Amino acid sequence: MSKEQLIPAEETAQQELTAPGDFRVCATEGGARLGMLHTAHGTVHTPMFMPVGTVGSVKSVDPRDLTEVGAQVILGNTYHLYLRPGDEVVARRGGLHKFNGWDGPILTDSGGFQVFSLAGLRNITDDGVEFRSHLNGSKHFFSPEKSIEIQQNLGSDIMMVFDECAAAGSDRDYTIQALERTTAWAKRCREFHPAGKNGQLLFGICQGGFYEDLRERSIEEITAIPFEGYALGGLSVGETKPEMLRILRHSAPLLPADKPRYLMGVGTPLDILDGIEAGIDMFDCVLPTRNARNGTLYTSQGKVNIKRAEFMEDDSPLDPNCDCYTCRTFSKAYLRHLYIAKELLSSRLNTIHNLAYFLRLAKDARDALRRGGFAEFKKSVEAIYGVNGE
Amino acid sequence: MSKEQLIPAEETAQQELTAPGDFRVCATEGGARLGMLHTAHGTVHTPMFMPVGTVGSVKSVDPRDLTEVGAQVILGNTYHLYLRPGDEVVARRGGLHKFNGWDGPILTDSGGFQVFSLAGLRNITDDGVEFRSHLNGSKHFFSPEKSIEIQQNLGSDIMMVFDECAAAGSDRDYTIQALERTTAWAKRCREFHPAGKNGQLLFGICQGGFYEDLRERSIEEITAIPFEGYALGGLSVGETKPEMLRILRHSAPLLPADKPRYLMGVGTPLDILDGIEAGIDMFDCVLPTRNARNGTLYTSQGKVNIKRAEFMEDDSPLDPNCDCYTCRTFSKAYLRHLYIAKELLSSRLNTIHNLAYFLRLAKDARDALRRGGFAEFKKSVEAIYGVNGE
Repeated sequence: MSKEQLIPAEETAQQELTAPGDFRVCATEGGARLGMLHTAHGTVHTPMFMPVGTVGSVKSVDPRDLTEVGAQVILGNTYHLYLRPGDEVVARRGGLHKFNGWDGPILTDSGGFQVFSLAGLRNITDDGVEFRSHLNGSKHFFSPEKSIEIQQNLGSDIMMVFDECAAAGSDRDYTIQALERTTAWAKRCREFHPAGKNGQLLFGICQGGFYEDLRERSIEEITAIPFEGYALGGLSVGETKPEMLRILRHSAPLLPADKPRYLMGVGTPLDILDGIEAGIDMFDCVLPTRNARNGTLYTSQGKVNIKRAEFMEDDSPLDPNCDCYTCRTFSKAYLRHLYIAKELLSSRLNTIHNLAYFLRLAKDARDALRRGGFAEFKKSVEAIYGVNGE
Repeated sequence: MSKEQLIPAEETAQQELTAPGDFRVCATEGGARLGMLHTAHGTVHTPMFMPVGTVGSVKSVDPRDLTEVGAQVILGNTYHLYLRPGDEVVARRGGLHKFNGWDGPILTDSGGFQVFSLAGLRNITDDGVEFRSHLNGSKHFFSPEKSIEIQQNLGSDIMMVFDECAAAGSDRDYTIQALERTTAWAKRCREFHPAGKNGQLLFGICQGGFYEDLRERSIEEITAIPFEGYALGGLSVGETKPEMLRILRHSAPLLPADKPRYLMGVGTPLDILDGIEAGIDMFDCVLPTRNARNGTLYTSQGKVNIKRAEFMEDDSPLDPNCDCYTCRTFSKAYLRHLYIAKELLSSRLNTIHNLAYFLRLAKDARDALRRGGFAEFKKSVEAIYGVNGE
């Protein structure tokens, strides 16, 4: 990836952002923001896409690959790492950075989403959630304090509060209950982890389902607690794209302007651009990595299903506008062959490309914001992927 | 991998080896030989270990990784590539090198071994072998000419004659029949591919099972045909180590001294050193790559089963004497975690290390031959792996 060509406001910010959590918006275009965030493992440029490394590795790629494709922050999943190898094991290794060899910033989720979507036999009380491991059925209990303790053990740069993420289609009563619990738990997380501790940032999460008034209430309650950043949770949980857009466009502008804003678990290239347009700074999603393993590849010319017979003798690179190792070195014909032959290298080369695409999309968005051309850039991607495209 | 420090005889050879097939023995110690072989894709140092890239990719690693661990030549499997994607498809891509991005030398086997061990419903005649694809049951026919035609299409630097590899435990009558067919087929291969054609070398394969007299007969017949190199086939097919050693030590010295000698499909680190001692120059085996995926790792301190619980909190590198990316970057604790969590990165990092071990073993053997210390070096490895160790 080519280096960022910073504008003067960013160069100034680079000097002035010194404490973890320092954040500066350096340019705007409509609601969209170009920014910088300082963490204990360096300063990152927003808007940004963060690859997901569920159990401590972004599937099939290594830290060198991640650096080469331009990753700034990677995610680790608290639920998964708690179960295996165990957060205390990771702590005794010196934290997740030392364990997995990634020395850039790491963001950990709270484990909440997995507890509510993956684990079995949940028992939710105001105190926390009892659940069974999806690995071996063993019984565990997450409280807000426990989630933070695990994330402290992991040593992530950005921690997320333990929240209750209501499923799409949850009724109003349940959504309110989850919202209230999320606020109560957020307070406990902040009390358990005061600002500045260990250089680890803590972000709040706003819920409220698909009800505008509940979103407003949650944002009001959560932003009343002083976090280093604020996230929109409970989107991309099975709703339609118009529903997601309705809440995104309603809620993102209500988040504090002087803190980083994170849209959790989103999304497709256009979802990301819609998010940036609405004022979001940070995104994560398994889409590029998971789809890479399924042979679905994102390119400057649209989505490519690499297993299609038409590519058997196609000597052109996957994406002529991509400078990733995969596109520099191999043809569509070879990538198709590796996929059809179920070679392990298929997942790796596809993942390198898809990550390069998502990370360049975010970088291109930053470059567009630098020159005031974001709206035009977004249109150019919509022209390829379709306004409601994936 | 550090660069080879050549002795004067090698520096001279480097100037004088200009035509594909040019081979020079630059030093000897007992029967062991230090040599150089020129191919259409560059000059390689022997003795050497060649990683196996069955369907056109060394499983889980890419060409950059192979260069970094010091690979000189990689293998491709004729049977597999013929079935998928098809040798004519590869030919239209400009050959296997252009297809898979490896621009060093490639050796292809003849497909014989897979036809006899993997394919179904064989019908063997003097003309060739009819078999069914292990992928979809479709019917195919390999003759000696067909095998060479496929290898010509693949564009490998070193091709192997189509032979009949008798299974371990074959009786004398069957072994003789296979030997005679192998000789007849070798002649047809040479006639079909005259020396020097397209810069592609052709190696003969000597059979004869576990009968010394039949080995002698096969070597006599095969070396009467002018090939650019000679291989011992039919070893490492299920026999005991002493049986393998008996035939190896009997037959290797009978191969022409002025041509490269190749022990096919062998083997463990000690098998390779036994082979070098007996005068072999080239080795290939799936052991490092397959065992990597199974969590069995070769180190300067012996074999390591990375899944063992004792490594859960082991912060030391897999092999303190290894300079590969895996050992430079990660701990045993992390490698164990990746293996237990079935992460794709596990196969990749383990493969990088195992290949680095096998390739460094061969390089260390070359360095030892340069200083006349091969016997001592072999003893040092035996001290770790045991004389009959794996």
